[in-house]
Amino acid sequence: MKIHDIPGFPNPLRIRIALAEKGLAGQVTFVKVDLPGAEHKQDTFLAINPTGTVPVLELDDGLHISECTAITEYLDNLDGDPILTGRTPREKGVIHMMQKRAESELIDAIGGYFHHATPGLGPVLQAYKNPDWAGREEWGRQQGDKAIAGMRYFDRVLRGQPYVAGEAFSMADITVLEGLVFAGYAQLAVPEDCTALIAWNARLQDRPSVKNPA
Amino acid sequence: MKIHDIPGFPNPLRIRIALAEKGLAGQVTFVKVDLPGAEHKQDTFLAINPTGTVPVLELDDGLHISECTAITEYLDNLDGDPILTGRTPREKGVIHMMQKRAESELIDAIGGYFHHATPGLGPVLQAYKNPDWAGREEWGRQQGDKAIAGMRYFDRVLRGQPYVAGEAFSMADITVLEGLVFAGYAQLAVPEDCTALIAWNARLQDRPSVKNPA
Repeated sequence: MKIHDIPGFPNPLRIRIALAEKGLAGQVTFVKVDLPGAEHKQDTFLAINPTGTVPVLELDDGLHISECTAITEYLDNLDGDPILTGRTPREKGVIHMMQKRAESELIDAIGGYFHHATPGLGPVLQAYKNPDWAGREEWGRQQGDKAIAGMRYFDRVLRGQPYVAGEAFSMADITVLEGLVFAGYAQLAVPEDCTALIAWNARLQDRPSVKNPA
Repeated sequence: MKIHDIPGFPNPLRIRIALAEKGLAGQVTFVKVDLPGAEHKQDTFLAINPTGTVPVLELDDGLHISECTAITEYLDNLDGDPILTGRTPREKGVIHMMQKRAESELIDAIGGYFHHATPGLGPVLQAYKNPDWAGREEWGRQQGDKAIAGMRYFDRVLRGQPYVAGEAFSMADITVLEGLVFAGYAQLAVPEDCTALIAWNARLQDRPSVKNPA
């Protein structure tokens, strides 16, 4: 298998943590995508992922799978022992619910803030994110407020249970974790009174897959 | 099981089709949510789904699962025979990839157009969607353009295969189908040259679960 990505970026980190959780790091070759040069917005890359995002998983038979939830479903089910996406219908339902909330309330909202209310990735890449429009900074700031509300939501969740989807670590924890990494890039601070979210984040930093992702 | 929703709206339709596909319609009681009265934005409803969206699945033990992907994962895996979300790692990966694309390139984009560039759901409900901001109509129109590009993408996909995720009907077909229903509400027409998408839609209208959803 190959993974097309770039180390150190938030979404690639999700799959690198998943690979470490599954013990699959040794089975993957990484192909570096020149994000600062906008390689992922050029035709060659768009042929393997029309959405123009990293990471992309390439199987040995040439099939390309993009989108982190999809890649995680593939990797997690390879050995018949899904530890990240749930074993029972109930686990699958709750994990996918929290995964979607982590994406819509944190990652998408932080993305809106970062790409519209801040200089974002710089002029070359922002051209792909930001056709200019009046009011986009105001919209970006509203997305920042939404992201802070999302942090408060996950803080409330983590006051009642050790992990985002319940008693066990899952894909949804990885996604919230990425949200906090992305928030750091965007300089959106976690509110100090989100003590459960802050404690959960500190605890996960000691987890082997988070300390040493693939 | 209960489903909190309102008939005739796009996201509820996704789960009603899934229930019909799975033969589960008889096991579900529907609880009508007063969407025009904004019941889903009040505290009682937010306690069962903090995101304030329908549908919500309520299990007999009181657990609430929201988000269509999550509800579909639950329902589809109940009988150990997942016909909508994939059996193999490869099927799961491709279906979740196309599901995400249907959401981001169609449904979310149509939602942006509908809620910002048109009168949307009317003044009462729009208050929840539209804190007013300069430029939101322009942003909405850009989202409409994105939705049309999404239709063109799925048209290209369906030129090469009978269903959105390949050879078999899946959750991703239901989501694209809902996208076209939502586009109809928003008066965003499918481009006439998207003949494969139009033929696929016509074919699915004869499918029993689409003709007679739960």
